[in-house]
Amino acid sequence: MITVHHLNNSRSQRILWMLEELEQPYEIKRYERDSKTMLAPDSLRKVHPLGKSPVITDGDLTIAESGVIIDYLAHTYGDKASLPSPGTQQWIDYNYWLHYAEGSLMPFLLMRLIFEKVKTSPMPFFAKPIAKGIADKTGKQFIGPQIKNHLDFIEAHLGKNTWFLGDDISAADFQMSFPLEASVARGIVGPDRPNIRKYVKHYQERAAYQRALEKGGKYDFA
Amino acid sequence: MITVHHLNNSRSQRILWMLEELEQPYEIKRYERDSKTMLAPDSLRKVHPLGKSPVITDGDLTIAESGVIIDYLAHTYGDKASLPSPGTQQWIDYNYWLHYAEGSLMPFLLMRLIFEKVKTSPMPFFAKPIAKGIADKTGKQFIGPQIKNHLDFIEAHLGKNTWFLGDDISAADFQMSFPLEASVARGIVGPDRPNIRKYVKHYQERAAYQRALEKGGKYDFA
Repeated sequence: MITVHHLNNSRSQRILWMLEELEQPYEIKRYERDSKTMLAPDSLRKVHPLGKSPVITDGDLTIAESGVIIDYLAHTYGDKASLPSPGTQQWIDYNYWLHYAEGSLMPFLLMRLIFEKVKTSPMPFFAKPIAKGIADKTGKQFIGPQIKNHLDFIEAHLGKNTWFLGDDISAADFQMSFPLEASVARGIVGPDRPNIRKYVKHYQERAAYQRALEKGGKYDFA
Repeated sequence: MITVHHLNNSRSQRILWMLEELEQPYEIKRYERDSKTMLAPDSLRKVHPLGKSPVITDGDLTIAESGVIIDYLAHTYGDKASLPSPGTQQWIDYNYWLHYAEGSLMPFLLMRLIFEKVKTSPMPFFAKPIAKGIADKTGKQFIGPQIKNHLDFIEAHLGKNTWFLGDDISAADFQMSFPLEASVARGIVGPDRPNIRKYVKHYQERAAYQRALEKGGKYDFA
């Protein structure tokens, strides 16, 4: 039996969605973020030494890192015939999105979130405008242009493709869902990016996605 | 023929090292960072729309994302017999490090670098202590503990393994080399982490690594 060690409002929601699409039985073990630090609780360390989510267990195997979990599920429980042969263009595209979501896109979204917190965290009144100035300058000169670059790239890709790998839903879509949902929810993706918004809305209406949402519990990004 | 689109002081250095270990012929196309912004030049967009490095071309194929490039080279030019079967523990370990380096470890190192820049960037004298306060607080409360968590994990792993996947050098080592070299070079990994330091020194002495360094040109992290 697959166990998903599930942290609320986290990257593990996409694992539940994938398992629902695969119609694979699984159980959820729930973990709650610390209400002050928003970090995962230490109890997750019993599953994996880093104490992060998502992580799944399947029999004797413990699997961490979203991209690896999704790839593992695709190889173990997915339609093997649709998996690309190593070294082909399809294989490159498949692996590209699995790595890109967390390796290239998420770091800038996370940095944006941290600098938003810099602006709003408690501090003496005279420090506030300076904190805002620092956050705005970093956003304008570095983080903002990087996020724009990435969103332009994704918007163009989704203008030509229904799903990340073309006509059919695949592992790449589960992996890309988290950063795109977060971007829509935080207003980073606005009406000027209709392809991304349409894409997210399209999959959020799927029955499997809805079932995952119900089982995962309250989810701030959806 | 493989072409490595190589940006100075970047994650593409590890691709050169891997190609040298594979004894695979390749050519280097060089790109220089903008001396002011430290970003890659726009000319890289002709190779891949994001305009990032590393990216390689191999015949008709264009491959981006370090983890995908390294995995592609291992599957195409490496010892196929040593590649793990999908879904096995070895396969999970192999893929874990390929994803972990950029998906989990690098974002915190990048954030640390950005907050270091916050402290040292030009600003009015009265703003300096506030900028330092913000950077130090973020470092102490969030980034620092995250980096410590990751380095503890890696230090323990390298106390039990010569290479990331055990007794032999593998794709995982090329991928993990960039964040670890950067951490040693920036003093994030100190003498209290002897296993990481020994590991980095060990591979930096390899003939293939030295050849890659010579061909790649000046490299600030080594």
